[in-house]
Amino acid sequence: MNPAFPSLQNDLLLRTLAGQTVERPPVWMMRQAGRYLPDYRALQAQYPFFTRVQTPELATQITVMPIDQIGPDAAIIFSDILVVLQALGVEVLMETGSGPSIPQPVRSAAAAKAIQSRPENIAKLSYVMEALTMTRMALNGRVPLIGFAGAPWTLFCYLIEGKGSKTFDTAKAFAFQEPESAQHLLSVITDLTIDYLNAQIQAGAQVVQVFDSWAGLLSPAQFEQWALPYLQAIVSNIQGAPVILFAKGSWYALSEMAQTGAAALGIDWTTSAAFARAAVGSFICLQGNFDPANLLAPIPEVILATREMLDSFGNDLYIANLGHGILPNVPPDHARAFVDTVKAWEGVV
Amino acid sequence: MNPAFPSLQNDLLLRTLAGQTVERPPVWMMRQAGRYLPDYRALQAQYPFFTRVQTPELATQITVMPIDQIGPDAAIIFSDILVVLQALGVEVLMETGSGPSIPQPVRSAAAAKAIQSRPENIAKLSYVMEALTMTRMALNGRVPLIGFAGAPWTLFCYLIEGKGSKTFDTAKAFAFQEPESAQHLLSVITDLTIDYLNAQIQAGAQVVQVFDSWAGLLSPAQFEQWALPYLQAIVSNIQGAPVILFAKGSWYALSEMAQTGAAALGIDWTTSAAFARAAVGSFICLQGNFDPANLLAPIPEVILATREMLDSFGNDLYIANLGHGILPNVPPDHARAFVDTVKAWEGVV
Repeated sequence: MNPAFPSLQNDLLLRTLAGQTVERPPVWMMRQAGRYLPDYRALQAQYPFFTRVQTPELATQITVMPIDQIGPDAAIIFSDILVVLQALGVEVLMETGSGPSIPQPVRSAAAAKAIQSRPENIAKLSYVMEALTMTRMALNGRVPLIGFAGAPWTLFCYLIEGKGSKTFDTAKAFAFQEPESAQHLLSVITDLTIDYLNAQIQAGAQVVQVFDSWAGLLSPAQFEQWALPYLQAIVSNIQGAPVILFAKGSWYALSEMAQTGAAALGIDWTTSAAFARAAVGSFICLQGNFDPANLLAPIPEVILATREMLDSFGNDLYIANLGHGILPNVPPDHARAFVDTVKAWEGVV
Repeated sequence: MNPAFPSLQNDLLLRTLAGQTVERPPVWMMRQAGRYLPDYRALQAQYPFFTRVQTPELATQITVMPIDQIGPDAAIIFSDILVVLQALGVEVLMETGSGPSIPQPVRSAAAAKAIQSRPENIAKLSYVMEALTMTRMALNGRVPLIGFAGAPWTLFCYLIEGKGSKTFDTAKAFAFQEPESAQHLLSVITDLTIDYLNAQIQAGAQVVQVFDSWAGLLSPAQFEQWALPYLQAIVSNIQGAPVILFAKGSWYALSEMAQTGAAALGIDWTTSAAFARAAVGSFICLQGNFDPANLLAPIPEVILATREMLDSFGNDLYIANLGHGILPNVPPDHARAFVDTVKAWEGVV
């Protein structure tokens, strides 16, 4: 840890992740630095996506934006999970409104073999570390800073499919047909991700989250083969910060994930607090699980639904969040109502 | 039931749905009459989608096609869930490769109010009943014929959103912001669906399935509000044939759905046999749950995975099926390997 960083004033997230009894749950929102904020959209109009990601001053500005405007208890660095594929030498395009695309997706054993762990890969991500350090300074200790990476299975999905998909069946077909290549790719991604997250922590990230956005497309057996071992390797090799695992849709694997050593597991809104708590036991944090679309309800109903969520999870070992990223069409005052309701909560009655 | 229909030779599905002990589980595949069959693609090139749906001779030909070529234990009428919206006066377009679209989606209370239960609505679906009767004759008793409809929540999603979506947040936002209009629309769709499914049974359907394709986007509380009451109304008012409910992704509501009186519940591949059986109890059939993408694996692995599925579900109260529709790029001999493996299965060792 850099001794020059300002001391942390709001350490609620860190105390919660450490399993301490807290005055109320901390709150943040996935994609809280995003398109629902008018100031973000202004920057979006001005700079291409990867310019925003790769310019530490812009990434810092965007990361701090919701702290000023919405007031969550943590910042999460503005970046993208696909930068790890770029660092592996894969071209990734991101055009506004159409999602990510990879012009030359991996579709053969030869193409898979060309992707290798190389010492120089991590250096291609140095702009993220610069952004983290710059953001830590800019936050000035107001809230902790979260770093993140995509999970190997999710990055594999994009690498093979070449774009978003409802089923990622091209990626799955490749994993079925070329199991050795799949294992190679998942391992290479895992190795870089471990280095990347540790570098993020060195650069200033105080918590890291791993996003397995497409784990919900897997059966329990596929999850054990293609997702869990790599998540386990990541959690086991991260040093210096607690890890939050968010495998969206993988309600069926909560119990296994709770054994990895992660400090918290993210859950989506299909998974009730009672189900999740029963699956994971009494010692790990849960994070979630407000339906992002529920932020489109009238504000009094946002407040009511947020309180119901808080009542169901209880005070400790819980991080209030959405069950997926905030939607671009959420009015900022609805997001603020969500955050404010958590901050005003006085515990289970 | 029309006494002129040929007598049924393969009644395995009906005996299974009736809870009888059977020699092996019956097998069919969702979307088994679809794009993975070359003969279907030939018809696709020749006739627009809704011409295929609305022409009883074509619908019959397509429905029987997989019975001849793949050999499942049931036929399911070739149609589309969105025909019910058409019968309510909503224009629905279907263009090859781009999915369904509704040029004038419902976005206001006034537009919602304009959609009403009218006695003449059901008459607009008479071509489906003709197709069912014609198919029953064409099947000549080889296998039973399944009719189907979309669930109210899923049709509501399309009606409001106007197209497919990963999140259907426009539909959810409408339900949050205009709860009375949402309830009205869900009720109107439910009423027509009850009439429609009963008419299908009168016309020759021996089993009916209700597809709630987007129920997996709901939280348990939302499911209880927007999905379950309408599914319950449908199951309670269907006469003369067993009902299969398939609420994709709604693992969290299996227990509630098992109380509706449905004869079977469909499950997807994220939901294990053990979890589902524990949730639903010992008296209702389960249907599923092979990952459609797993059919893209080499044939020996398709066979192995199919056997593992059969072992996990056991012999009785079980219908072998996919966990979602068959993918267009599945080689027909892989689909045949799946079906043949079920037919050759000799029970749990």
